Amino acid sequence: MNEQDLIARYFAPLAGPGGLGLRDDAALLAPPPGADIVLTADALVAGVHFFPEDLAEDIAAKALAVNLSDLAAKAADPLGFLLTIALPPDFSHPWLEVFARGLGEAASAWHCPLLGGDTVATPGPLTLSITAVGAVTAGRMPRRTTAAPGDTFYVSGTIGDAALGLVLRQAELGRAGTPDWAAALTAEQRAFLVGRYLRPRPRLALVPAMRAASAAMDVSDGLVGDLRALSRASGVSPQADLRKIPLSEPARLALAADPALFDLLMCGGDDYEILCAVRPQSVQRFEALAQAAGSPVAAFGVADARATLESFAGPDGSKKSFDRDRYSHF
Amino acid sequence: MNEQDLIARYFAPLAGPGGLGLRDDAALLAPPPGADIVLTADALVAGVHFFPEDLAEDIAAKALAVNLSDLAAKAADPLGFLLTIALPPDFSHPWLEVFARGLGEAASAWHCPLLGGDTVATPGPLTLSITAVGAVTAGRMPRRTTAAPGDTFYVSGTIGDAALGLVLRQAELGRAGTPDWAAALTAEQRAFLVGRYLRPRPRLALVPAMRAASAAMDVSDGLVGDLRALSRASGVSPQADLRKIPLSEPARLALAADPALFDLLMCGGDDYEILCAVRPQSVQRFEALAQAAGSPVAAFGVADARATLESFAGPDGSKKSFDRDRYSHF
Repeated sequence: MNEQDLIARYFAPLAGPGGLGLRDDAALLAPPPGADIVLTADALVAGVHFFPEDLAEDIAAKALAVNLSDLAAKAADPLGFLLTIALPPDFSHPWLEVFARGLGEAASAWHCPLLGGDTVATPGPLTLSITAVGAVTAGRMPRRTTAAPGDTFYVSGTIGDAALGLVLRQAELGRAGTPDWAAALTAEQRAFLVGRYLRPRPRLALVPAMRAASAAMDVSDGLVGDLRALSRASGVSPQADLRKIPLSEPARLALAADPALFDLLMCGGDDYEILCAVRPQSVQRFEALAQAAGSPVAAFGVADARATLESFAGPDGSKKSFDRDRYSHF
Repeated sequence: MNEQDLIARYFAPLAGPGGLGLRDDAALLAPPPGADIVLTADALVAGVHFFPEDLAEDIAAKALAVNLSDLAAKAADPLGFLLTIALPPDFSHPWLEVFARGLGEAASAWHCPLLGGDTVATPGPLTLSITAVGAVTAGRMPRRTTAAPGDTFYVSGTIGDAALGLVLRQAELGRAGTPDWAAALTAEQRAFLVGRYLRPRPRLALVPAMRAASAAMDVSDGLVGDLRALSRASGVSPQADLRKIPLSEPARLALAADPALFDLLMCGGDDYEILCAVRPQSVQRFEALAQAAGSPVAAFGVADARATLESFAGPDGSKKSFDRDRYSHF
């Protein structure tokens, strides 16, 4: 089976109208009137960004999710995506079939059809690269650099679940011991955390609300590190009360069993939630739009004009510092 | 040096305005009024699509060229590109510096700025994936599927140089013997052929002419195979006189020394020329636009309504058949 046959069999069924059945040499998009085009690319390598043992449909969905998470943070509705996949010599057709089905389900759920891409052979590990394309109301993409003093910082969903889920996943796969705090959780609660790691969900429902944000990015490398990155890029300092960062029930139980987990929750990655800043005059509208979307957001701090005066209140209310602001998972 | 530092040092200097200095999470493009957006992606893996010994600047330029070749065939002016690069453990900073410089020079020459991408680590070979974005007059992208009976087939430039160049390159690297026909060429002529393989040039000057084509694709997998692919997709048959396919002087000399090379010239890949079909009423305008662009094109056949009646006239004018229509180089 050559490249054309692989594409026709597994990927052509996923193509949206602009993908021209993946039978052409390029994809075609008519940009929505009054919109800017937003583009983002993320690559995933087996053994680096996911475990080779992960389910094919989970790998596929995550590869798309991490890109759509960027679009959501940039207030952009997805228009479609291109996938390049480098297949190792030992890839199997059943694996690819499940991968393509999972990709198709994710693309359908998130209204982001496949537009094109490339399928190649590699002597190395499975490597995926997705470029996602979205549309944002012209001039309204929230940058990383445009938070201003006095803005309120918000975060969506709950933070730290995926970092705990990764610890549990490593134990499941026999690559690390089971942590003591796992005993404080039910099997369902542990599965919830692992699911948050394996199957992130881009916060696309928040796209309308993000048009009211002054600056935004997705939380992929740890909340503290990403908050510092956004603040630095904007020339402000975060004054944050970390007690206001929402935690899931399983994460709260784990933290109660092992208070030392706090840093991991705040600095672990893979949350794929949205971090944003909102001007005082937009706070009410932003909160109303988030509520209308059914996506909870929590205010947890403000941007300070003094560029080097960050301050974090920790779990007991006292000043908290972080030795490192990002965890590297691999 | 972490990912952010690598991006800041090597890639941020290449960013166009829409790339936001590569300091944001996404790129932003305001689509030109009245334009459709054209997207194409091609991946290159070290040892599969290029030799690890190839110069870093040649690899960079070729990765961009093969994508821009698709845009040119689709009558699209480049707007920019995204690059994901997976770096092996033993990558060197001097290598990456030369790669980035070569990429920047190519991007500048072809007016196609870097917009974004991703930099990751891989335990496998260097892997590049580029997504190129272009703009075409709305509704005017020539498809692969829209050639009609009576259309004239054209090809740009000269065909077969890169296939000969690859043979010479393999000999240079000691991976194959030097072919006898090489003795018929001067050192400069051999270097010309190798250069055509290592440094393809996308036919962007033909973009205005391509708006007058009825169907088009770039010639990347061999002229005969690509002609068959376009014809099949359009439901026509090619009636082609292969004596009219333009050959360079070095290719003509090689062919004179070894007439058996004819199949390799016609079916070898990596030409990155443009193959297109043109309606009878557009032939004059198409030829005038190509001439104005300074890019020679040659008419070499017509599309026949009978879908299964292809015919090729070979070097001596008699009917020519091909055992295989594409050469796989690796």
